[in-house]
This record gives sequence, C-alpha cells and structure tokens, in this order.
Amino acid sequence: MFSHLSRSFLNLKFQCNNKFPIRLLCTKPFYKVPTAASKKVTERKGLQNQVKITKKFKQRLSDYLKDMATPEIEAKLNPLRAAVKEYADIIRNLKASNAPQNDIAKAVVELKARKKKLEEAEIELMPKDAAFDRPKLEDLLKRRFFYDQSFAIYGGVSGLYDYGPMGCALKQNMLQVWRNHFIIEDSMLEVECSMLTPAPVFKASGHVDRFVDWMVKDVKTGECFRADHLIKNHAEKLKSDKKTSDKIKEELDDILNKLDGFDNNDMQNVIQKYNFKSPITGNDLTEPQAFNLMFPTEIGPTGDFKAYLRPETAQGIFVNFKRLLEFNAGKLPFAAAQIGAGFRNEISPRQGLIRVREFTMCEIEHFVDPEHKDLPKFSKVKDVMLNLYSAEAQMDGKSFTRMSIGDAVKQGIVDNETLGYYMARTNLYLLKVGVCENKLRFRQHMANEMAHYAKDCWDAEILTSYGWIECAGHADRSCYDLTQHANATNVKLSAERKLDAPKQISGLEIVPNKAVIGKNYKKTSKEILAKLGALTLDDIKKVEETLNETNEYVLETSDGEAKLTKEMLTIKPFVKTIHVEEVVPSVIEPSFGIGRIMYAVLEHSFRTREGDEQRNFLELSPVIAPIKCSILPISNNEKFEPIIESIVQIITAYGLTYRIDDSAGSIGRRYARTDEIGIPYGITVDFESEKQPHTVTLRHAASTEQVRLELTSVGEVIRKLCTSAYTWDDVKKQFPLFTAEQN
Amino acid sequence: MFSHLSRSFLNLKFQCNNKFPIRLLCTKPFYKVPTAASKKVTERKGLQNQVKITKKFKQRLSDYLKDMATPEIEAKLNPLRAAVKEYADIIRNLKASNAPQNDIAKAVVELKARKKKLEEAEIELMPKDAAFDRPKLEDLLKRRFFYDQSFAIYGGVSGLYDYGPMGCALKQNMLQVWRNHFIIEDSMLEVECSMLTPAPVFKASGHVDRFVDWMVKDVKTGECFRADHLIKNHAEKLKSDKKTSDKIKEELDDILNKLDGFDNNDMQNVIQKYNFKSPITGNDLTEPQAFNLMFPTEIGPTGDFKAYLRPETAQGIFVNFKRLLEFNAGKLPFAAAQIGAGFRNEISPRQGLIRVREFTMCEIEHFVDPEHKDLPKFSKVKDVMLNLYSAEAQMDGKSFTRMSIGDAVKQGIVDNETLGYYMARTNLYLLKVGVCENKLRFRQHMANEMAHYAKDCWDAEILTSYGWIECAGHADRSCYDLTQHANATNVKLSAERKLDAPKQISGLEIVPNKAVIGKNYKKTSKEILAKLGALTLDDIKKVEETLNETNEYVLETSDGEAKLTKEMLTIKPFVKTIHVEEVVPSVIEPSFGIGRIMYAVLEHSFRTREGDEQRNFLELSPVIAPIKCSILPISNNEKFEPIIESIVQIITAYGLTYRIDDSAGSIGRRYARTDEIGIPYGITVDFESEKQPHTVTLRHAASTEQVRLELTSVGEVIRKLCTSAYTWDDVKKQFPLFTAEQN
Repeated sequence: MFSHLSRSFLNLKFQCNNKFPIRLLCTKPFYKVPTAASKKVTERKGLQNQVKITKKFKQRLSDYLKDMATPEIEAKLNPLRAAVKEYADIIRNLKASNAPQNDIAKAVVELKARKKKLEEAEIELMPKDAAFDRPKLEDLLKRRFFYDQSFAIYGGVSGLYDYGPMGCALKQNMLQVWRNHFIIEDSMLEVECSMLTPAPVFKASGHVDRFVDWMVKDVKTGECFRADHLIKNHAEKLKSDKKTSDKIKEELDDILNKLDGFDNNDMQNVIQKYNFKSPITGNDLTEPQAFNLMFPTEIGPTGDFKAYLRPETAQGIFVNFKRLLEFNAGKLPFAAAQIGAGFRNEISPRQGLIRVREFTMCEIEHFVDPEHKDLPKFSKVKDVMLNLYSAEAQMDGKSFTRMSIGDAVKQGIVDNETLGYYMARTNLYLLKVGVCENKLRFRQHMANEMAHYAKDCWDAEILTSYGWIECAGHADRSCYDLTQHANATNVKLSAERKLDAPKQISGLEIVPNKAVIGKNYKKTSKEILAKLGALTLDDIKKVEETLNETNEYVLETSDGEAKLTKEMLTIKPFVKTIHVEEVVPSVIEPSFGIGRIMYAVLEHSFRTREGDEQRNFLELSPVIAPIKCSILPISNNEKFEPIIESIVQIITAYGLTYRIDDSAGSIGRRYARTDEIGIPYGITVDFESEKQPHTVTLRHAASTEQVRLELTSVGEVIRKLCTSAYTWDDVKKQFPLFTAEQN
Repeated sequence: MFSHLSRSFLNLKFQCNNKFPIRLLCTKPFYKVPTAASKKVTERKGLQNQVKITKKFKQRLSDYLKDMATPEIEAKLNPLRAAVKEYADIIRNLKASNAPQNDIAKAVVELKARKKKLEEAEIELMPKDAAFDRPKLEDLLKRRFFYDQSFAIYGGVSGLYDYGPMGCALKQNMLQVWRNHFIIEDSMLEVECSMLTPAPVFKASGHVDRFVDWMVKDVKTGECFRADHLIKNHAEKLKSDKKTSDKIKEELDDILNKLDGFDNNDMQNVIQKYNFKSPITGNDLTEPQAFNLMFPTEIGPTGDFKAYLRPETAQGIFVNFKRLLEFNAGKLPFAAAQIGAGFRNEISPRQGLIRVREFTMCEIEHFVDPEHKDLPKFSKVKDVMLNLYSAEAQMDGKSFTRMSIGDAVKQGIVDNETLGYYMARTNLYLLKVGVCENKLRFRQHMANEMAHYAKDCWDAEILTSYGWIECAGHADRSCYDLTQHANATNVKLSAERKLDAPKQISGLEIVPNKAVIGKNYKKTSKEILAKLGALTLDDIKKVEETLNETNEYVLETSDGEAKLTKEMLTIKPFVKTIHVEEVVPSVIEPSFGIGRIMYAVLEHSFRTREGDEQRNFLELSPVIAPIKCSILPISNNEKFEPIIESIVQIITAYGLTYRIDDSAGSIGRRYARTDEIGIPYGITVDFESEKQPHTVTLRHAASTEQVRLELTSVGEVIRKLCTSAYTWDDVKKQFPLFTAEQN
C-alpha cells in the first residue's frame, strides 16, 4: 500500500509536508521538536509561569489578549504575520495552478520557518508574571524524588525515568482522574492489551516501514547521531564562532529555522556543504540512514517469531474491534479506551519527560458510522470555550482564537460533533489537573500535515519552557486502521448499519450443481465451491459470458484447472430485500501522553513565595496532589501523640493521604518542606489543641492562611476541598481565621 | 560470584534441591508446574469449587478437617504419609552423616515424588460440593470478554492475553484494593520504574546467567520443545499404549512423579533411554539446552547497548534504594512497593492465565535492620488465622495446620514478626478479593528449596483446577540483593544504625604528607592518595611492616610504580568514638502475581444456579465486581425512562458503576445475563415504581432475593454493600422482601 512512496517519506515526522503520511507521523503527541531558535528564546527570556487558574482568570486572559493588540505589539507582529501570509498565498497559488508537489513542499518549508519566527515573537511578548527557573524546578523534583533517571547507580540510561513516591502518586492520581473523566463518565469499554506485539501487526499499521528517524554514523567508530541534532549543534557552534562571516551566519540561521522540515537529502547537503564531522572523533559521517524507533525482540525460543514493543496502545484496540463490537451488542457508535505503556527507541532522547523511551499513554478509539458523526451529548459541552488555532489562522499568521466548541463545529472550523466533543472534554480534563488555560491551545493540522485518509486533526498543545508541546492529539482517522488490519488478516472488520427503509438489490448469482461438481472433482470440489462463492458481480458476468461463448469456464485450483460446464453452473438474476448494510466505522482518536501533561502541570504549578526567592513550592490542584494533607505538631511534645492518632484515624476514614512531620525544626521550616511537595493543606496541632473539644488549625498552602476548627470536622472539610465541593473561601466563611505568631 | 557453580544449577527452577539457588528460582510465584499426575487427577475428578466464605465458614472448615480425620480417610493417607516420612528421615540421616551432596539431592527428588502422591490423594479426598467445569467457565470468560488471546485475528500468540472491559475493570479493582490494603494503609513508598533494563543490572541480580528453562531442538528443523513438557507428553502417550509392559509403565510413572526435580542430565537420560523423538517430525532431538527466559532488546541505535524487559519489578526498587532511604529521612525500616508489568519468554506457555509471557506483578520490598526484625504493628494481626504448611509438616507427610500467625512466630515456625506480618496481611487481602479460605494455604519452602542467603520463605498457594498454584511469595532475602548491586556498581547501599551507646574503636591510620607526595608524583599523587585512603586495617599493618623493613613501600599506579618513603607516610594508632554503624538492610519481599490470583478468584466464584445446570454465574465479591449494579426496566415502556435517568444520577453520584439492560427478553433472562458477569446487585423498575414516592426492587444476585425500597435510598444502600459496611442480611432487616412473579 505504501510501496509507491519515495524514501523521503521516512522523514515525515519532521517534514509533514506530504500527502500520504501515516498516522504516527502526524497525529500523535510525541513528535514536535522545538527548533533550536525557539528553545533558545524561551530559555534566555525565561517563561512566565505563575498564572493561576482563579476566578479572575477570564478577566486576566481578556487583559492579556487586549495587551496583545496594543499598537506597539501589533507593530512588532504585523510584519511577521505578513511574511507568513505571503507564503500561504504563494502555496495557495501553487496548488491552484497544479504546480509540482516538490515546489509546494519547498514553499511549505519556508512557510513553517516564517511561522516559527512569528511564534517566537509571540511567546516573547506574553506578559511576564515572574521568571520561571527550570533548573530550580528540576532540582526540587530530583531532591524530593518525584522522578529521576533510571538505573543511575549503573550510570543511567537517557530517556528512561523512575517515578519516586511523589511522582508515582501524582501520576496515579492523574490517571485516576482521566479514567473517571473519560472512561467512567462516558461508559467507554476499557481494555488492556499486550505490549509485546507480533511484527505483522505493525507491518499492517505501517510502523515497520515508516516509523523512523534519520541518523548518521561515524564511519570509523560507528557511533550514531541523530542527523538533525548533529546539524543543529554544529550550526550553532559555527554561528558563535567569530571567524564565521555574516553571510554564512545568515545561511545557518535559515537552516536552523527550516531544520524541522528537512528530509534526508536536505540534511546530507548541509553536512557536505559545511563539512560537518563527528563531534567526538572528528571522523567523516555516513549519509543519513533510517532508524526504526520500535524496540525489537523475539517471542519464544526459535528466533523466527519477530515482535516489537508497541510504540502506542491504539493497535491493541483495533485488533480487538470484533470482540468489542460484539460486547456492545453490534451497535455503533462506541468508544474503547486503553491506559498503558508505549515504547520508542529514540536515537538520543533529551528534554526530560518530554521525549522518553518508555511512557504511559491514554488512548481512546471512538468507532462511529462515517455518515453519522453527530453526537447527542455534544450539546452538554457546546458552550465550553477553547483556544482554537485553526489551519487557516496558522496560514495567515494569526494567533489562536477563543471560541465555544459549539460555534467552532457550527462554522465548520472543527469537522464534526464527535471530534468537537472530545476536544472539549480534553480541555476540561487538562484544566481539572492544573494546566493553565492561557497556556493551552488546540492547533489544527494543516492540510499538508495530515495523512491522506485523515479528515481533521487537532493537537492540544501546552506552553512550557520547552515551547508549545503536543500533549494530546485528536484525529478523525476515517476507516484507515480497520481497513489495514482487515486487509492483512482477511477478517472482516465492519459493523452493520440499519437501513431507514428496507432496500431491494438485484444482481446475478451462481448456483453450482454440487452433485455434478463433486462427482467430477472429488476433494477439489470444496475449493471450487469456495472460489465460486467469492466471485463478485463483475466476475459472475464474465463467467456467464465465457460459458455462453465456449460452453465452459476454466477455474484455476490448487490441483491445476477445473473445467466447469453449464451442467455444473446455473447463472440467474436475483432480487433481494436487505434491511442492513455493511459499514467500516470511522475512528476518532483522542490520544494523551500523560508524562508530558504531568511535566507541564509541574511547570505551571511552580511558585516562588513572595518576598522569599529561595522558597519555591508547588501549588498542585488538590484533586491530583500526591498527599492531601500534612499533620504537624507544633513541637515534639508527647502530649500531642493521642491527638495526632485521632487525626490519622479521621483522615484515613475519608480515604485521604497524609504525611506526619514531627521532626525537629521550626514550624515555618516544616511548612516550607510540605509546600515544596505540593501538599495543599496542613493540620497543625498546637498547645491550644489540648483543650476540650480538641481543635486544630487548617492551613491553605497556596495562601498560607489558616483557620481554626474542631478536630472532628477536619476530615470532612479536607475531603470537600479535595473533591472541589468546597473552595478555600467557603472554608474561611465557616471557620475563624487563625494568625500564627510564627509562620 | 556464581562462577564456581556447575551448569546443573541452571535447572534450579524445577530442581530446587540445592544450596546456592538464586532468588528467582525459588522465591517467586511463577514457577510451580503441576505434575502430569496431579493435573490429571484434578481434571478427572473435577474440583469442588462452590464453598462460599460465609459466617458458617469456620464451622464448615472445622467439619472438613474433622472429615479428613475419619478412620477411612486416615487409612488411605497414613501409608502415604509414612512413605514421605521414611524419606525425610533418610535425608536427615544423610545430612547428619555429612553424606555427599549428590546423594542428598537424589533422596530429595524421591521425597518430593512421594509428597506429590500424598497431595493428590488429599485433593481427591476433599469434600465434593459440586463439580467444577473448567470449559464452561472458560466459555463464559471468552464470550463476555473478560479476557482472550491477544492478536487472535493474526492467529494469536500463546501466553499473551488481552483483557476486555470486564476483565480490565476486575483487574483494576483488584489492584486498587491491593494499593489501598498494602501501600496506603501501611504508608509504603510506591515507585514506578522502567521496564526496559540494561543487561548489567540483570547480570548482577543473577538473571542473565541463571533465569533459564531447558529445551530440546529437532536436529533437522530446529523446532524447539520444552524438555520437561516433551518428556511428559511422550511418557503419557507411551503409558497409555497397550503394548507397553507393566514394568515400563511403572518406570514411566516414576519419571512423571520426579520430572519436576530433573536436571538436564536426568532429562537427557530419559530421552535417550526411551528414544523420544520430535513429536512433529519424528526426527532426533538435541541434548537439553538452557534458554534464558528474559526478552532481549537493544536501547539506542548502535546495537551495543544490550537490555532486557524485566522479568520482575523488584530490581527497580533495589537500584533506587539510596533515593528511597533518603526519602525516608535515612531511617529503617521502610517498605517500597511497585505495581507493574513483568515479562517472561516462556518456551511454550499453557494453562491460560497461570503461565503467561506478560503479566502484572505487585511487589513489596521491606528494608529492615537485620538485627531488628520485630515490628510493633505485628500485634494488630497476631490473631489472624492461617493455614500453615510448614517444611516440617511437608517432610513428615502431614497436612497443613490452622493456627494464628502470633503463635506461629512465637513457636518459631515463621522466622520473624515482619515476615509474619506480611503473611497475615496477604491472607486478609486474598480473602477480601474472594479467594476461598479452605483453598488457601501458606507453604514454607523446605531448606533445600531456599537460596543459601534466604532466611525463610512462605508461598501463598491457592487450590484451583490446575492444582495448588503459587500466587504470592513471602521471602526473607537477607542482604543479598543490595549487596549484589553494591558490588556491581561500587555504590554503597547501606543505612546507618544508631548505636545504643557510643562505641570506641581503635586501629591504625595512614597520614600521608601531601606536599612531599605531590612534589614527587605530580598528577599521579591524587591517585596515590585515593589508594592509600582505601587501605584496610590489615593493609596498613603490612605497609607499616614493609616501611620498617625496607624503608619504602611500593604502590602500583596507572603510571607504573610509586615508591613511598617514611618521609611521605606516617602510620599511627587512633582511637575514635562512633555513634552509628553501617548496616546493609535485610529485605523481606512479598510478591504477587495478580493474573493468577484473578484467575483463582474467578474459579472460586463460579456457580451453577440450583436446579438449572445450564445457568452459570459469577458470585464476585462486590468490592471487586467490575459493575456494581444493573438497572433493568421490567419492560421496554417509555414511562420508565425518567425513573431510569434518576437512578443513573443517584448511582453515579455514589461513584458506582452500572449497566442498563433495557433490551427485549424476559426479566429472568436479563437477570441471568447480568449474573453471568458477576454484577452483585440489580435494580428493577416495574409498574409499581411509577407511584409516588418512586420505589424500585433491589436484587441480590447470589441469593436471587429482592427487597423493595425507595429510589432515593438505592445509591447509599449499594455503596454500603460494596464497601462491606452492610451485608445482605442487614438490607433484608431494613426493607420488605419482594417476591416477583417472574424471576
């Protein structure tokens, strides 16, 4: 099916300017490599990261958007927008005049380079709430063991991370919220499929041939480098060299901007022109070679059962389609979902949790009649507001637009209700777990980014210090996946559509005379009957013609030839009333990379205590916080022990996680320690607590405010806060504020 | 470390009669292969599977044990017990007389064969409540998509299973109960480590060299067979051949009983003696070859970074020991836990979920000071009653004994409180998820089964139609794992023990004259100082001697030799007061195979409706049931729709999963359909429901009893039933029984 495609398609992952990319290269959340330039800018400028999702949020967003429209800002952005639009127009004209694909592809590379420049300018112009200091966050995450490099005592493996107690609980909570939000609320069919997958499955899906990156090797040592990384590093080094002429610097800038779109030939040209060598040995390099990103292994002892670790969970759902349809009583639409691990053998992973070799995905495959993509429950989400960055806006150099998903579907910006429904649900999920709304956008794939079979694709992208990161894809993949597996296995993967009214169909049918065929062809007759049964209408017409002309029809069998006569075959017209017709469902696929979302949430939650630059903390949503409350005796007095024990009993009864910190050290220092790991609430036991009825103080980490309340109420109050039934303001209205001498 | 061990150790997995087995081969839950004989018996007789865990359970168990003691039964068992004891005594004598290891090993093989015969007799004598029909259960599990073979449309892969919506939810619930029961209740440190693991990690743990099965190959086609399976199949076939003499049949019986304990030489002898050939082609077979059961792969593109998929999750915890200790503020004891996938490349997996290539494990590593294995919270579980099958009882041909874990530790049957604590907790977990208590025992490893470093091991074994299956292991592994990784990495993996009283230690120390060494040896001086710093007390004594004798001490360096004089080194005695000492923690490891437990629970929950042999159903514990309640309108009347909507709202508010069945078909038929997938409660909407206030009936699937209650109460009642806050008897006391005309 893909054999007519040229080798340059292998680079679609970064090129995406092609008409036939396979799904993986365009619709999944793990590809977008920020360019050198965009990264540099974000790192140099520091990203403003302290925007809270509060009541004031809408006002602030509107302020921000107004900001963006000041004459000064417009003056900066307008020429860049015009530059993008210029190329968008050129591409439209090229397409209109049926220009060669190659010319269009070249123009797209230029268009994308210009878009990137514009985006960098926009990021630079965002309001600077506070400086975000990534090394500080990374230090916290490592020190308090959210996650860290795997096998560090063995030297570590890049792209592999172990989650410690904090990260593990945070991730579990995010997955649990995901499961409730998507699977339980929408009654999806959850499955858990094998990670080990036989090679033929990925041959059919296209991964064996097309799921690749380009690499170059040191001709003498064989050391491997990802080709685009190597070019980037060399080009940046050369640019910073004083001896490099301005003209060359300009050329290098241009290369760095376009690198994402380069295919193997483009990269080879750059390597040759500038004579780039191995950065380790200085040896020559091979031409870029394709490297498949799936981890290979073998099942069983024979060595001839090739298998791969799945690079995504989706295929497991597709190969179970028949069972799932049956489970759903044969009815469409239905959605199946899977939470599980995926594996990608990145050549040289970087950027922490953003690009890893082993990761947790959540994928939904919504199977729907291709002619009925409307969805009754869409009405429930139609008013959800999204930041939509349409292909049109991208072509014209505009920014994203805030609008309701209802309007977006009505105006045809988003293709259909089912796709729109999931985008809205994703938006709600991401806000629930703590993504900042003004750092979240849905970017539509441009026509040239999408696979030929795809109807519409929108990536949820989150702005982090690494740039805009794809965290969830939403693709209408038509019937591609089921068709591929049906073709590879000869198993019908389709559903039945009930016709509004019964339909009469007419045609020709072959009626074999089994007795005569059996007598003449003995054990071959079974094969003959099977072959006759598989003939299409056109085939049957041909058989009729041949029979009429030559009085026999010759059928090839495994035994040689079978000569079938009119005595053996009758051909007659038929008329049939049918009530159902067969339909291969379309698949709408929302696909989430949980590690990326978790990292984005950590960046968006990272705060510095006002007036104390050294005191960083995480303001995690109580819904996902690994530990819901801390229990802190004001001093190490034995009298507090029974009170602490009562608190633990109450807290545990409400299923809340807690941490007791009765270590030495001032209460302020211990608060700081609990704030650092995102514990949203703190229960302090002080000398006042001893009096009957026992009271404690409850501290809100985000504001450091405290109230005093009876010990017996504390479990119920925290539970309500952690399930969004209460806000902190509700608590303040109910209980008296408490001012500690020392905090 | 293992290099002195002979090749025959490779077969420890099934032999286990050795002094130096590595952990995997003896303490993990996935090894026990039921013998041909035991399997045949259980399949022929059918296992009695209908024992419910009810209030009457204790009485019934006691009756059962009394049953076992009838003179008739004793008459059958006593000779078999005597036969076991005979060999146990022989082994004791051999050991006492320091007989050659080989003789002891041979006697152990005979002992185990006799034990097996006894066990089969015991299983046969168990009360026959009802016949268990495995094909019927398997049909149900496949038809309602609990789980099924992976990649079936591609021909399937043996040992790989996909969980459908029912199985997936059941497993998730079992894991959630596990997490709450172990991790949350005991404040363990949960981690999630990489599955991809570099080869050196498994080299250190012993898996690369020792985690193997034996296989034979067809010399012409290269087809592989697991050696013990091949022998078993051939021997059974030969036995059933009329032409086979009685003498040969007896020999074959003996082989089948001892097969588990055979090493490669034993198996080769059998294959040669009986001239066993390939069952497919009839060709000759190779000698048994070791096949490593880990799936190999490579990380990165170079091809020289060898890695494996982990066969267990434990190693990930061990390599993170330092971080976890730090997270726990440097204090012992603490427990870390991991829930995750393991992979084992079985040669020819069979027995459904019992032996698979990809599976979910739950593992706990409890790190403890080797001199303080007592545990304050042990008192909370000391009265938990367990079926303990001690090594002593096994040696003497006795059955298991029911006793409290407190007594077992007090009497020294279980080695220490920490190990005992976890055994009791495991017992409580298994009962909670629905394992029948009289089909659960804790079997102690006999001395010859345990690794030399292990202190004590107890497997939780569950009786299923495949025989007694190991489902959870409990091993005191001493300091083996941490020591292995510390040696491999040169990273200290130890904790500090605070001394009761400060201790004075004395010794010799070397004081180098850095200036003089630096002047003489320039850049080598750093290396010299490092080497001097690493000298032990004995080394220092030798240096002192040499210096005194020859006036110089020659130290080998990477630059050649360094001649150190008295001018450069001063050696003097020292006295130091220390407050802490270093200790490598012992590890106590409970390790669970969730798939096996789930399968056992399904067998133990499988019921046939009295008086209707065709109507099978699952009586799952409401705690783990995938769907908590069904909602069934008595007919397809539109009037019921608003009532059903109200029910859904109430049910959802309580976080309960539900399934609406408003399909055509009698209510009885629909009840049967919901019973089949283990839905414990059914809400029926009938014509009475329309009246104000709305009422519904609540049906208890296990008893088919129904009560009538107000619609508004139904969520709270089901929630209480599903969290064990209510029993069905409580509900019956509160609401009037309802008798349906049609059920």
